[in-house]
Amino acid sequence: MSESSHVPKPYAAQAVVLLSGGLDSATLLALAKRQGYGAHCLTFAYGQRHAVEVEAARRVAQAQRAAAHRVIEIDLRAFGGSALTADVAVPKDRSPAEMTGDIPVTYVPARNTIFLAYALGLAEVLGAEAIFIGVNAVDYSGYPDCRPEFVRAFQGVANVATKAAVEGRPTRLVTPLIHLTKAQIIRTGVELGVDYGLTHSCYDPVGELACGRCDSCQIRRQGFAEAGVADPTRYAAGGR
Amino acid sequence: MSESSHVPKPYAAQAVVLLSGGLDSATLLALAKRQGYGAHCLTFAYGQRHAVEVEAARRVAQAQRAAAHRVIEIDLRAFGGSALTADVAVPKDRSPAEMTGDIPVTYVPARNTIFLAYALGLAEVLGAEAIFIGVNAVDYSGYPDCRPEFVRAFQGVANVATKAAVEGRPTRLVTPLIHLTKAQIIRTGVELGVDYGLTHSCYDPVGELACGRCDSCQIRRQGFAEAGVADPTRYAAGGR
Repeated sequence: MSESSHVPKPYAAQAVVLLSGGLDSATLLALAKRQGYGAHCLTFAYGQRHAVEVEAARRVAQAQRAAAHRVIEIDLRAFGGSALTADVAVPKDRSPAEMTGDIPVTYVPARNTIFLAYALGLAEVLGAEAIFIGVNAVDYSGYPDCRPEFVRAFQGVANVATKAAVEGRPTRLVTPLIHLTKAQIIRTGVELGVDYGLTHSCYDPVGELACGRCDSCQIRRQGFAEAGVADPTRYAAGGR
Repeated sequence: MSESSHVPKPYAAQAVVLLSGGLDSATLLALAKRQGYGAHCLTFAYGQRHAVEVEAARRVAQAQRAAAHRVIEIDLRAFGGSALTADVAVPKDRSPAEMTGDIPVTYVPARNTIFLAYALGLAEVLGAEAIFIGVNAVDYSGYPDCRPEFVRAFQGVANVATKAAVEGRPTRLVTPLIHLTKAQIIRTGVELGVDYGLTHSCYDPVGELACGRCDSCQIRRQGFAEAGVADPTRYAAGGR
């Protein structure tokens, strides 16, 4: 684990912000700061193919002056079972219809459960009152752990699992993006001054470039188009 | 992560068994095997002072012929906040009255939430139908994440978080020790042939010896006395 710290304002309430380095969590961080929280960003290096995301997270945390940024290495590869961590091909050039419905092969087993579990521990140690997580049920309805019912269930755990909860101060999960479209997220971030050129979304980058063809690239590109915002992403391919 | 495998019986249902190397989880493993499960043991090396527990877990898994044993390293020390992982003194020579009520300083923030989150991911990858966890609400009522309400809440997460859950096969949490006294656990294990000489409970071992004075040693010793079973533990001190 590595950590870099700015000096947090002592009077501000603290929040743990799950920061992947992608477009959604960069917007999430800006929303947490706008709500007045000292933002303790938490990024996981979990053997994902898109490790360049972790570097994006560092850039985003620094640019937005997070109170602190922690990177925790966890070994999800040992589990296998996902195209993001094992030798399974990342799907390319799928249509929106093909992306919805079934759980995609890029699903990582219990990923958000593991991330929230760590966030809960960190929140307890810090005395943070909230955990911000950028789950979104609109564009990625295929992931079981991005759904409102998942968030509600984990809130149930937070309500009983910690010393703070027993003492009547359970950590609160905050999911401001859960019902927003990608275009709405982008417009929100632009209003808050988020520099999306620092973020990374691609599941299968080609060096420094986004592939332009995986589900994530296609949804990102489409989101910028719908938002009427210039896409700062450098893509390797034009996509469909 | 390291792994050692025996060949699991292909026809048996699989379970993930959280194995600390202590007395309770050694009994838990025996119960999972008695119920016919192929037992995939999962042990966490989390920077605890009592790392000798991890070696005990290896011995127990081998002796009981677990289907597999995985050790995952996670860095809870980075969080601080517990006598088991940080530079806080482990309490010694406390009376039973002193042990109950307040949350002990040996509480590790969100520990069981983190352990169960990993177990859930592993269960999903393996197609395991159950997770066995040896939480106990009798002797350690001070830990918020050992209570029945915590287990119920995490079952709520398991019911929605995974692909298996969405498909109608949620992973089931099994907690056979939750309402047993230490003496009852020991008698159960003895009936199942558990070799408690392989297990380790002490929070603050002196080389190969148990300290004999921390809460865990005192509860263990008292349990053997109440069960009328000879205690195979080698203690450094006689305790109170």
